Amino acid sequence: MSKSGGFTEMAGAKAAKEAPHVGVGMLGYAFMGKAHSNAYKKIPYMMYPPVAIPDLVAICGRNEEGVIEAKKRYGYQKHYTDWHKMLEDKDVQLFDNGTPNDSHAEPTIEAIKAGKHVFCEKPLARTAEEARTMLEAVKKSKVKHQAAFNYRFLPAIRQAYDLIKAGKLGKIYTFRAVYLQEWGMPHYGVPRVWRYHKAEAGSGALGDLAAHLIDLARWLVGEIKAVSGLARTFTTERPMPNGKGMGKVDIDDDVVSLLEFEGGAIGTLEATRFAAGRKNHGCFEISGEKGAIKFNLENLNEMEVFWVGEEPKETQGFHKVLVSEGYHPFMSNWWPHGHIIGWEHAMIHEINHLLDCIVNKKDVAPYGATFEDGYRCAVICDAILESAHSRKHVDIKY
Amino acid sequence: MSKSGGFTEMAGAKAAKEAPHVGVGMLGYAFMGKAHSNAYKKIPYMMYPPVAIPDLVAICGRNEEGVIEAKKRYGYQKHYTDWHKMLEDKDVQLFDNGTPNDSHAEPTIEAIKAGKHVFCEKPLARTAEEARTMLEAVKKSKVKHQAAFNYRFLPAIRQAYDLIKAGKLGKIYTFRAVYLQEWGMPHYGVPRVWRYHKAEAGSGALGDLAAHLIDLARWLVGEIKAVSGLARTFTTERPMPNGKGMGKVDIDDDVVSLLEFEGGAIGTLEATRFAAGRKNHGCFEISGEKGAIKFNLENLNEMEVFWVGEEPKETQGFHKVLVSEGYHPFMSNWWPHGHIIGWEHAMIHEINHLLDCIVNKKDVAPYGATFEDGYRCAVICDAILESAHSRKHVDIKY
Amino acid sequence: MSKSGGFTEMAGAKAAKEAPHVGVGMLGYAFMGKAHSNAYKKIPYMMYPPVAIPDLVAICGRNEEGVIEAKKRYGYQKHYTDWHKMLEDKDVQLFDNGTPNDSHAEPTIEAIKAGKHVFCEKPLARTAEEARTMLEAVKKSKVKHQAAFNYRFLPAIRQAYDLIKAGKLGKIYTFRAVYLQEWGMPHYGVPRVWRYHKAEAGSGALGDLAAHLIDLARWLVGEIKAVSGLARTFTTERPMPNGKGMGKVDIDDDVVSLLEFEGGAIGTLEATRFAAGRKNHGCFEISGEKGAIKFNLENLNEMEVFWVGEEPKETQGFHKVLVSEGYHPFMSNWWPHGHIIGWEHAMIHEINHLLDCIVNKKDVAPYGATFEDGYRCAVICDAILESAHSRKHVDIKY
Amino acid sequence: MSKSGGFTEMAGAKAAKEAPHVGVGMLGYAFMGKAHSNAYKKIPYMMYPPVAIPDLVAICGRNEEGVIEAKKRYGYQKHYTDWHKMLEDKDVQLFDNGTPNDSHAEPTIEAIKAGKHVFCEKPLARTAEEARTMLEAVKKSKVKHQAAFNYRFLPAIRQAYDLIKAGKLGKIYTFRAVYLQEWGMPHYGVPRVWRYHKAEAGSGALGDLAAHLIDLARWLVGEIKAVSGLARTFTTERPMPNGKGMGKVDIDDDVVSLLEFEGGAIGTLEATRFAAGRKNHGCFEISGEKGAIKFNLENLNEMEVFWVGEEPKETQGFHKVLVSEGYHPFMSNWWPHGHIIGWEHAMIHEINHLLDCIVNKKDVAPYGATFEDGYRCAVICDAILESAHSRKHVDIKY
Repeated sequence: MSKSGGFTEMAGAKAAKEAPHVGVGMLGYAFMGKAHSNAYKKIPYMMYPPVAIPDLVAICGRNEEGVIEAKKRYGYQKHYTDWHKMLEDKDVQLFDNGTPNDSHAEPTIEAIKAGKHVFCEKPLARTAEEARTMLEAVKKSKVKHQAAFNYRFLPAIRQAYDLIKAGKLGKIYTFRAVYLQEWGMPHYGVPRVWRYHKAEAGSGALGDLAAHLIDLARWLVGEIKAVSGLARTFTTERPMPNGKGMGKVDIDDDVVSLLEFEGGAIGTLEATRFAAGRKNHGCFEISGEKGAIKFNLENLNEMEVFWVGEEPKETQGFHKVLVSEGYHPFMSNWWPHGHIIGWEHAMIHEINHLLDCIVNKKDVAPYGATFEDGYRCAVICDAILESAHSRKHVDIKY
Repeated sequence: MSKSGGFTEMAGAKAAKEAPHVGVGMLGYAFMGKAHSNAYKKIPYMMYPPVAIPDLVAICGRNEEGVIEAKKRYGYQKHYTDWHKMLEDKDVQLFDNGTPNDSHAEPTIEAIKAGKHVFCEKPLARTAEEARTMLEAVKKSKVKHQAAFNYRFLPAIRQAYDLIKAGKLGKIYTFRAVYLQEWGMPHYGVPRVWRYHKAEAGSGALGDLAAHLIDLARWLVGEIKAVSGLARTFTTERPMPNGKGMGKVDIDDDVVSLLEFEGGAIGTLEATRFAAGRKNHGCFEISGEKGAIKFNLENLNEMEVFWVGEEPKETQGFHKVLVSEGYHPFMSNWWPHGHIIGWEHAMIHEINHLLDCIVNKKDVAPYGATFEDGYRCAVICDAILESAHSRKHVDIKY
Repeated sequence: MSKSGGFTEMAGAKAAKEAPHVGVGMLGYAFMGKAHSNAYKKIPYMMYPPVAIPDLVAICGRNEEGVIEAKKRYGYQKHYTDWHKMLEDKDVQLFDNGTPNDSHAEPTIEAIKAGKHVFCEKPLARTAEEARTMLEAVKKSKVKHQAAFNYRFLPAIRQAYDLIKAGKLGKIYTFRAVYLQEWGMPHYGVPRVWRYHKAEAGSGALGDLAAHLIDLARWLVGEIKAVSGLARTFTTERPMPNGKGMGKVDIDDDVVSLLEFEGGAIGTLEATRFAAGRKNHGCFEISGEKGAIKFNLENLNEMEVFWVGEEPKETQGFHKVLVSEGYHPFMSNWWPHGHIIGWEHAMIHEINHLLDCIVNKKDVAPYGATFEDGYRCAVICDAILESAHSRKHVDIKY
Repeated sequence: MSKSGGFTEMAGAKAAKEAPHVGVGMLGYAFMGKAHSNAYKKIPYMMYPPVAIPDLVAICGRNEEGVIEAKKRYGYQKHYTDWHKMLEDKDVQLFDNGTPNDSHAEPTIEAIKAGKHVFCEKPLARTAEEARTMLEAVKKSKVKHQAAFNYRFLPAIRQAYDLIKAGKLGKIYTFRAVYLQEWGMPHYGVPRVWRYHKAEAGSGALGDLAAHLIDLARWLVGEIKAVSGLARTFTTERPMPNGKGMGKVDIDDDVVSLLEFEGGAIGTLEATRFAAGRKNHGCFEISGEKGAIKFNLENLNEMEVFWVGEEPKETQGFHKVLVSEGYHPFMSNWWPHGHIIGWEHAMIHEINHLLDCIVNKKDVAPYGATFEDGYRCAVICDAILESAHSRKHVDIKY
């Protein structure tokens, strides 16, 4: 236990040796550009002593006014409006793609060809076929590649991973997961932005939300061998963002699927933007021979665990664990004794991991999701839609 | 509001007029025999003033010693060891079948033929085919028939039903449900009792647990038009109860299914006896256009509701409702102000409903589940297993 | 573990030997009369095999029409409108007093003098002085005496008691408790019934609700040596129940107190009928050197426990225990596997305990609350009001 | 509602006009130094467009090696080992005191005399007398002064404040609050650091934890007119941090108090470092005539509210509100749709408020806590200890 009640460990007790720098080129400056930039800015003083110092070399976006403002806001040194130019910038070693799904593949593949390490938002691509081109690109290269399945880097979920890998659940029987949001519902009045357009987004709740669950299912439980799915579009047209009439919605608002795992487990998942009252309700429960683990993204500092055999039965029950202490994954970087963290912190841990892999020549897997993981997730997403169409269970083939 | 703080309304304020009597013949005296007998004994003084007085005419079981003890315990007037004899008893007007699944159909059909009203435990039968014979029998008769889907009679679930029927959820988008128990897991050491034997039980978690969810799905959301299922038997043999070697387990330990509703909603369900830490975790969440409703059987005095449009958004959220007040369904029969009820009370409400239908010539539907409902549930159960086998989505045909 | 999954243990496996009978005379037929009568009716077949069979000899109340109806409703053999007469009835061995607080002392003392065992609702009396007269009466007699602090007989609270007595919490540091209800608030419109009248009730939330917490504090943590209190009457007059004008409210609507225990622990309590949104929210948390225990009456089938030292720290947390299994106190009498019980069941367990003490010559203490406990609780209640008046900490002297 | 589902509002839509700069001099670099520095670094790009840009002018601490490292870590321009020197630095406009309690008064008063705006950690001082000297200093000056009662700046608590000020609770009846931590318990093995030493800390759980509750009580409910307290030191000696023997603990490990508010409400509070299983459990519930509000610091993105009169009673219940949306206080600065924030964010909002007050000449009150608030809190803390000693209720006199 801490000699000071956990409080003065906050001070850096020893001098940080000089950490190597990694030049970052950021593509996109909206929600994900903001979240990623925040991570680059916090890593040097919060993931301390730092394994690497990210240099905010450049930010790129199509709208020059916007990108200039973003440059000033986050402290990037340069800006570009053409990503090809940014890829020519020798100071950029890590290409970070935080754009919508239809601009994941091309710029990222070009970055790989240019020898940049790559970090790309999820879903990796609009389809498995497109994701495969990205995977093939990294296979031909030596760059580090990470797909932004950031929930792997939440302390509670990493703790779940560590417990499962240590055999604490034994054989796994079932995985059940939902990712429920409500902002697609009519009363929100969201227009037909790119997220509702298959050509730009690939899919709807599936690629946006179910992809997270699928990545966690594969990471925590194991490979998926078959699925059976259904999808629904509850609102089939929406006003165009430019105000010019209505546009067709051709993606899924809600998707459900059965899962068969190679290890014998089965499962269910649902992802939807039509769940009244649910803001960001991403939950899973994994039931195994020796115990069970539960998680809820809206309360991400907590996990619940149950152990079958180790406790007096009269007081057995799910443990409600506040994953907030220095002995929990990542938490020694933050605050003492139950001072909780937020959603943005997973992104910080995730990007820090990639920087560590880059400068220390470590593998991104198994802690981080690679483009192989991004591809496999895309294959499963496609299979769910195929099943919804063919009305058959669909075997997964990578 | 009550003039006395809700307390003295407990006293019957006016004399009960003499209620008609209904003679009951009970088949079975184990778990369900106990729960049903308890209901018959409490109705006269708790569902007050009573619509009918059940007379405990006879109880029947194969083990004479056991049935004689049960007769004394619960106060039945007579006992039988052959149900044919009990059906000949003129004093029996209501035949209550609380036996294992393989003795649902024959005695119940004979009771119907003998002109007895019938109350049969769920699942109605081992297969849809068998359930159909029971349905056909009641169609040819004038008796009242009720299948023991007792959760319809929990105050919170009846409240959910009333809200949905009043349109409070609007169009329904999704139904998600689980029924998780753990007593099938290896460490419980349960032998190969009838519940693990297809010839006696028909199915495993499916007919035992998923059947409840399917009945609620149909009742609350509407008719189901297709399913897609998976099933697993995690423990394939168990010691025979008679101590003579091992017996094969040929039913499902865990079953999952997708649901397509005629009204456009989709859903998932899981039922399992292998969910570590879950004692009797029967939950559903229904998401609709105007709101959502949640329920959990382990905390059955509560429901959660969310309304989309009626509240200031800064304090919107799921309402955690203690369904414990006199203005909630059934609760005025019980205790004032948050003094909660238990699982057994649903059975009391359910049997009281059937007695009311019998003496007042009311329809069992829509509040109670009829044999038509029991049959339809069986059709859906069969379709889930068929889908697990054929690996295709299966359309429901009644 | 059960050989049958916990299900067929429901059948009485062996014949009950003939249990002795105890004749009951019940005074009062409102809320408590109903709850006690229900207990007498269920004990013979649910607390099985029974330790004693209560005979419903007689019920007594001032309103003859009401008491005759209650006799029929609950199946009492006789009725009285004068409790003196009932006490002359030789068939009555146990006198059960379920009346308002101002008729606790006199009839109960007369019953004791008549050699009847006594069960009296809480608070035992309106003041410590009055309670002392009841205690003195039982001290001069050989009758069994129990005060209806029924929450001692909830399975979760008995489990807490057993854990504490086994030393599982070690030295206790703090007891914090609230008992929150809302039905006194203006919008309920409750008139000035006896509960708002000091001459009849003695006190308000204090004797009605805080008394439960005080009894639990003494039972679970140990003797109280000093208190410091405050009290408020938020609604100082209410319409008289007879419709004739307004009546003064001279009891507390809300009371708070500090507690000092002899063992060194400290604590707080609050009892109120003015807590918006709280129906029957009786909660405590006990923090000790080795662990902690939490309980909430609105979810009475649960308890939460935390153990300091016995578990891997990364998954430490409060265990949410569903106190619903056969190995939990009292639960083997009821249903298998998470089929929960309600508020009324504590009363059944409590009265069964008293019957056991009567027929088997056992001590009511420590499991049941005796009149000594009822008196001590009254002393503490009086001290809290004295402190609110004197504005000093008040030492407890019995 | 957002036209883009809430996502692209993340991009700064309009260029920030050049914000004024405020030079910061930070005293202390441990837990609070880290949390404050993090706030200064995040404000320019997250509280966007910024009202002011904090310049990290200097950091000061007694240990030169440590303070140099902190300078590099957080990006301060200069370092000092003598705070007098830092106060002479003309570039410092805001003096931020994040040191232990015994170095709050003197440096802060000197800073005020030097014309610096001041931000001081809580409790403002070790005693009311000491706090009064600080209050008197600001009264003689024109500097802005804020005491770091950061929980006022949690979105859920600000939301609670706004609701109460808008009259949504009506007349308030009760305030009940606890602040429970466990790290003082023996098994943590914390030595006799300054927090256990009255000369350095002033008090224990009282000034550290109860002070937060007292500030919130005053802010949310209103002025306190009397208290009655108890305090306990469960561990009376601890090993000295320097390894030289044992040191006496002369502060409170656990403190409880009754509260009387001028507006008629009453309340209880407890603060302890001996609550097994509680990491940072700071909770309050406020019950009023028209509703109630609940909050828990371990789940700080949530609040619960209950409204007495505005909803159909059959679905009334506490609303579980995820305070995570753009329409909630402060949240539009962060992430869309349920992407939650952490503990550190309150500090960011709080310091941003002070910067806004400095550059825009606004009053720190009522949203921020001034030194007047810090002083009044200290008076109440002292009164609680006085009551614990005198065993009388103590009237508050400022």
